[in-house]
Amino acid sequence: MDSFPIVTLTTDFGEGSRYVAAMKGVLLSINPQLQIVDISHSVPHQDVQQGAITLLETGRFPSQTIHIAVVDPGVGTDRGILYAEIDGQRYIAPDNGLVSCLAARAKPTTMRVVQNNKLWLDEVSNTFHGRDIMAPVAARLSLGIDPAELGPQCTEFVRITLPQAECVGQKIEGEVTEVDSFGNLITNITAEMLAEVPRGEQTRVCCDEHETMGIFSTYADQPPMTLIALIGSGDKLELAIVDDSAKIMLGVGVGAPVSVEW
Amino acid sequence: MDSFPIVTLTTDFGEGSRYVAAMKGVLLSINPQLQIVDISHSVPHQDVQQGAITLLETGRFPSQTIHIAVVDPGVGTDRGILYAEIDGQRYIAPDNGLVSCLAARAKPTTMRVVQNNKLWLDEVSNTFHGRDIMAPVAARLSLGIDPAELGPQCTEFVRITLPQAECVGQKIEGEVTEVDSFGNLITNITAEMLAEVPRGEQTRVCCDEHETMGIFSTYADQPPMTLIALIGSGDKLELAIVDDSAKIMLGVGVGAPVSVEW
Amino acid sequence: MDSFPIVTLTTDFGEGSRYVAAMKGVLLSINPQLQIVDISHSVPHQDVQQGAITLLETGRFPSQTIHIAVVDPGVGTDRGILYAEIDGQRYIAPDNGLVSCLAARAKPTTMRVVQNNKLWLDEVSNTFHGRDIMAPVAARLSLGIDPAELGPQCTEFVRITLPQAECVGQKIEGEVTEVDSFGNLITNITAEMLAEVPRGEQTRVCCDEHETMGIFSTYADQPPMTLIALIGSGDKLELAIVDDSAKIMLGVGVGAPVSVEW
Repeated sequence: MDSFPIVTLTTDFGEGSRYVAAMKGVLLSINPQLQIVDISHSVPHQDVQQGAITLLETGRFPSQTIHIAVVDPGVGTDRGILYAEIDGQRYIAPDNGLVSCLAARAKPTTMRVVQNNKLWLDEVSNTFHGRDIMAPVAARLSLGIDPAELGPQCTEFVRITLPQAECVGQKIEGEVTEVDSFGNLITNITAEMLAEVPRGEQTRVCCDEHETMGIFSTYADQPPMTLIALIGSGDKLELAIVDDSAKIMLGVGVGAPVSVEW
Repeated sequence: MDSFPIVTLTTDFGEGSRYVAAMKGVLLSINPQLQIVDISHSVPHQDVQQGAITLLETGRFPSQTIHIAVVDPGVGTDRGILYAEIDGQRYIAPDNGLVSCLAARAKPTTMRVVQNNKLWLDEVSNTFHGRDIMAPVAARLSLGIDPAELGPQCTEFVRITLPQAECVGQKIEGEVTEVDSFGNLITNITAEMLAEVPRGEQTRVCCDEHETMGIFSTYADQPPMTLIALIGSGDKLELAIVDDSAKIMLGVGVGAPVSVEW
Repeated sequence: MDSFPIVTLTTDFGEGSRYVAAMKGVLLSINPQLQIVDISHSVPHQDVQQGAITLLETGRFPSQTIHIAVVDPGVGTDRGILYAEIDGQRYIAPDNGLVSCLAARAKPTTMRVVQNNKLWLDEVSNTFHGRDIMAPVAARLSLGIDPAELGPQCTEFVRITLPQAECVGQKIEGEVTEVDSFGNLITNITAEMLAEVPRGEQTRVCCDEHETMGIFSTYADQPPMTLIALIGSGDKLELAIVDDSAKIMLGVGVGAPVSVEW
């Protein structure tokens, strides 16, 4: 038995939004054999940077998986729509930076502008290209059409840059780039940058006005209600309150400064 | 490879409710080849009108898709359960008006009362017919049983009427009928009613105590934080705050009066 | 056409968490033919007891369904991971009590410690065993590997005990063990315990400081905004406010005392 082609969805529509269902209906109407996987519909509204991070951190999917990403404040303007092949995966997204961080990590093998409106719904609204353009294009790709049919190749696209942590002497300065549903604060300080940093109590980790000593392995290394710094599952420095929400307890969020000093 | 039959779920159970999983378990126990698609579990609790609107606005699914809708404040009373075929789609829902707006838009080709308890679970609770009656009936339909087995045909069913917008002279009066997860206010004023209305600044759109001039094409036609009126993706007049929530900024919701005057 | 093997997910990650998607990506990368069903990602963070109740109440799934449960405050410590076959279903979960209530209801036919790291991802993080261990193990089980390959059999595992209701004379004392998304208060007083209890007005049901007379069949048996006691869809005594949230109106939650007296 063959497996079904996979299409994933990443949007800022909100969990339970019927806009998600509208995209699923279009996808399945064109290819009823699709397997649709929801990545997240909880990207903060209109927040292209958080959408880009979600795509970056999604992790492994089967080769040739088609990922549709819709965080699209510019819908209906002349912003383009991109098709990109990156690291064995296929992406369809507005050209607003959503896939640019993926493209910075691994050079796209193909990048095209989605322009061939014969592959879209017959009527295209001004406010919902996820349903009217991206879903039908994804469904048709899953049926095996040649990506060259989508539109011309391109090399220029909108790039956004995520804030980068910096290491100066015995100090690394970064910031919180994501807050997960546990309230854990995920930073842009990578495990690689911390490779030579001592893990013991001589290392001070600060987040906004708060500080904690040492870098640990797992949440259970400290007692409940303690602020702890550790390398999270995405190989980034993470700040957490054991068994509670660092976001709420510390009152900080995306953009809060984080430093490591030893 | 054949495609799998599709069953969709629309409920007021809340995202992440284990009641949804209970229905999925019953569906898959009877037909493990089903493809289950969540439309929304975020219909406001007990709100039959919002459930009916969600079904109306769900959009295209493959022909013969089976849609189960459970917003069922009368569960366990003598309210019936309906099976309806409308516009090539199949619906199973309590007879409380949920499918009546679909039936008003396109005449049902078949309407039956779900009465044959041999197709239900052996034990039927008084409080969860979605799991005990509707899910097994849907699963059996997906296996190919004749809908005539479900129960007798019927022509009478509970109807609800959605509030209609009215056009008098150079003024259209309607109301907000839905608020999406972006906080956009969707009204019952249709694109058709607005076909002859000038789009420019001479047209005044009011919502409750707020007003805005002109009808635009897309959210990006106005600067951030501006109140904008536009034709949304469901061909209805919509009020939005660019890059923010009109619901919160205007403090209005379903039922708020909306007028267009030119 | 064969059906696809089913893997369900029950976590405390939150709806829309990309951690859920990460698990789905791993599952599908190993077995693209899987059908993945979300049970719930709304188990309260770190709340093993609520996770155990969700598993208990999940209801029927096809035989041999693989259920992954991740509520795992001890991730990265030396707590084990269990594989259990119970009542025709297969479970993978941390050894922290999550499956112990299932195991108390029906004796496991197999119980193993998940130890064979050849079946895991090549790199295992300290903070996300759901993705790195449980998902790949589940996917490989779905491909037909012998559970004996997972690790040695075991008989000892962490047990948690759910609070039990007690009947003394003409009074039953229990408590609220779960609150559903409607705000209904589900108790540990079973239909079986209530079999001989009169349903009429002579029976007093108290929850915290609130009381109501009689035990009814369905929510619609009382007028809106009334506190009602009834046997819910899981065969437990439930307290509800008709058309509203008992949780909010009564201001009570899990652990609140409930008594039935006649």
